[in-house]
This record gives sequence, structure tokens and C-alpha cells, in this order.
Amino acid sequence: MQVEVCLTPELIHQHDLKGKLVVVVDIFRATSCMVTGMSYPIRAIYPVETVEECTALGNQGMVMAGERGGKKIEHFDIGNSPFEYMQGKWKDRDIAVTTTNGTATIKKSEAAHEILIGAFLNLAATVNYIKKQKSDVLIHCAAWKGTPNLEDTLYAGALIHELDNVRTMGDSAQLALSLYLQHKSDLLGAAKKSGHAARLARFGITRDISFCIKKDVYDVVVAYLGGRLVRILP
Amino acid sequence: MQVEVCLTPELIHQHDLKGKLVVVVDIFRATSCMVTGMSYPIRAIYPVETVEECTALGNQGMVMAGERGGKKIEHFDIGNSPFEYMQGKWKDRDIAVTTTNGTATIKKSEAAHEILIGAFLNLAATVNYIKKQKSDVLIHCAAWKGTPNLEDTLYAGALIHELDNVRTMGDSAQLALSLYLQHKSDLLGAAKKSGHAARLARFGITRDISFCIKKDVYDVVVAYLGGRLVRILP
Repeated sequence: MQVEVCLTPELIHQHDLKGKLVVVVDIFRATSCMVTGMSYPIRAIYPVETVEECTALGNQGMVMAGERGGKKIEHFDIGNSPFEYMQGKWKDRDIAVTTTNGTATIKKSEAAHEILIGAFLNLAATVNYIKKQKSDVLIHCAAWKGTPNLEDTLYAGALIHELDNVRTMGDSAQLALSLYLQHKSDLLGAAKKSGHAARLARFGITRDISFCIKKDVYDVVVAYLGGRLVRILP
Repeated sequence: MQVEVCLTPELIHQHDLKGKLVVVVDIFRATSCMVTGMSYPIRAIYPVETVEECTALGNQGMVMAGERGGKKIEHFDIGNSPFEYMQGKWKDRDIAVTTTNGTATIKKSEAAHEILIGAFLNLAATVNYIKKQKSDVLIHCAAWKGTPNLEDTLYAGALIHELDNVRTMGDSAQLALSLYLQHKSDLLGAAKKSGHAARLARFGITRDISFCIKKDVYDVVVAYLGGRLVRILP
């Protein structure tokens, strides 16, 4: 098995997605929210790019979730905090979600053979699933408005490290693995240095940062299938 | 002073170059060659994008240098090895050079206030020069066909580390610094893991790799001024 890393969706054209298993990651906070939501469990999450599309799905009865610039969209039901996804009232509901970086990254991965949604929160579950597959892996970091970020790169490194005995392809994978190995004993400390963590802290959302960096809180495996996110395990 | 890093020219549109001091780096091997050449000393180096432009300057009497895909261009005088730039016969000559990644990165930096050419070979000299300037710094990695690479990112981290007491801006700077701090006791070992080093090794050019990763062999400071590279110090 071969693993490569794309540090930002703006570089995804450099990668061949055909036949690959792509893991999309947006640690602060889109994919951490998605993994949390699918654990509670929400029935399905429909990622869309615009507020208008999200509102249209809301008018059809879905819960509306999303942020712009890190802040909840005004008429939406929930924003982009994993804690909002833990509320029992969304159980078995469908949620339409639009986020700044995460949704666009999922859409840009659609040429892949299979798309998973990754977060530290379900790292081991995702690793165990991937180990049973035969496809080569591409970790697609959502980044921040196109610029590579620390937290998604750390996750990429963690996934490579945990997959074990894989062949990395390309220097971005080496970069991610090296970053993770240096910081694995203090991921929170490293992630707090990220620009995004600083932005979230300005909104007073530091508990989200601490939560999103936790490993293996949930055992779900989440995939993007037929335009929506579903739980494929357990 | 603030320092940011652009990991590949494909992301340079995310950075505001206005008023910045940009350091262009292409460790394997364009900027290492340029720094070597300017130490011998060549009079000036004219970086151009195409083989045709380079040939036209050759017809005007310049030495022609350059590579495509890591190999010397057939009718050129020299390829892209720093050792070729050490030959006394180019002394006080003008050299026209075209390379895969380095030249394009210089051209894409032209909106900056000032452009330096960086390499491990003249790290300390460049650091000392920058410390006396007032501009914020952007380290522009030439990368490999648009994908971030280990060796240029290592240099970016080394420059940030040596500048000391600077404020990093953006996660790419943090990433580079972290990579450098992890590998600074064995830069050659780290650089050998890069895809580009592997490509060069296939061409049998391992001594170039070892040389290009050496710090402070030369004390020149090289700048891009009026369409050509010149030595501004000593």
C-alpha cells in the first residue's frame, strides 16, 4: 500500500485520484464535527458548497449546519462545533452542512474510488478499516483558504504512522510524517500554534480545539457515498 | 520582522509580495548552482524560462546553462551541477540559465521589493544581510513541478531558525521550522529521503546532493536585480 498527501485542495490537480482511497480531513472543525455527528447517530450528512444549497435542503426538512469564517450562519440550526452535534435532538435526522474548507475538499475528491472522512476522533477505526482495503491512499487536507495548515498535516502524519509498513509517495507525505513524529507526545501544544487555532481562540472556542485533537473518542468509520456521508462501521 | 513561507510557486497567489524581501530557494540544484557561480565569480546570471530564450542569449555571447527533467540540455555549455559552475573558464562571463523550477519561481517573485537567491551554501551570509533590512521576509520554495519538497522546506526552516527572534506568519512557516528542528543534526539524511534526491541518484549525481546540503561554503549574497542575478556582497 502506498500513501500520498495533498497539503491543500489547491494542489489536488497534481494527484491522480483514480482508484485511490481518499481520506478527507479538516480537523478544525468540519470533519471532527462530521465524525462526532455520525457517532450520535445522525442518519446522514449532506455536504454542500453554498449557504443557498444548505437552506434549500433545510426547507426540505433537514437540519442546517455550517459556518463562514468560523462563525455559525445566522438562520442555521447549528454552527461548526462538535459539541453542537452531540445533542440528542438531531438523532436519526439528516443534516445539510456547508463549511469554508471541508465541503469543497470532499467535492474535489469525487474522482476517487472511495472517500472517507477522517479526524483524530476516529483515527484507529479509520486505520483498521483502511488496512483491510487494497487501494492506495491519498490524504487530502482541507487546509485554510488554500494554505496548508498544521492540524490537518499532523493528522496526515498520524494516519501514515498508524497505518504502519506503508510506502510513502512524495515529499508531502514525508513532511507530514516528520511533523507528526516530532509532536506526537504533545499534539495539542503543536496544534495550538496553528493559525486556525488562534482564530478559533479569538471566538472563544478553545474547548473545540482540545476536543478535536483527541484520538479515538469514537469508533465510527464515515464514508462519502452517493452525495452524502454515512456510517459504514460499526 | 515577520517571516512567511510559500511551499510551492503554485500557492504564491496566496501571499502578498508587495514590500517583501523574497528569498527564492531551489536547493537541488538551481539556486545552489547560482550561489556557487556567483562565488567564482561569474559576472551575472540571466535566468530565463525557455530553452529558446537561453539559446538566443547564448547567440549573443553568453554561456548557456540549464536542465530539463534534471538533465543537461544538449547544445548547452553547462547543465545544472554546482561543480560545473566552479570551472575557471566562466570567470567574469555572463551566464544565461533555464531550469525546471528555479527560474519560474524567480519570475513569480517579481512583485517583491527585493529578491535574494538562497542556498544552504550561503545561509549565514544571507541571514546576516537580511537581519540588517527592515522588510518582512517571504521564503519562496521552488518545489518540484509544483509539489512541495523536503529540501527547499528544510532550507526555509533553517533560515527562520537562523534569523532568530522573528515572528512566523502562517502554518507553512511553522511546518518548515518544525521540519528543520527535527533534522538539523542530519540534513543530508533527511534530504536524501526526498523524491528529488532519489531522481538525482538515478542520474548518478549523489555528490551534488551532498554538496548542495552543505552550509556556509560561500559568503556571497546574491540578488535578482534588473532581470539578472548579481553579487551584492561581499
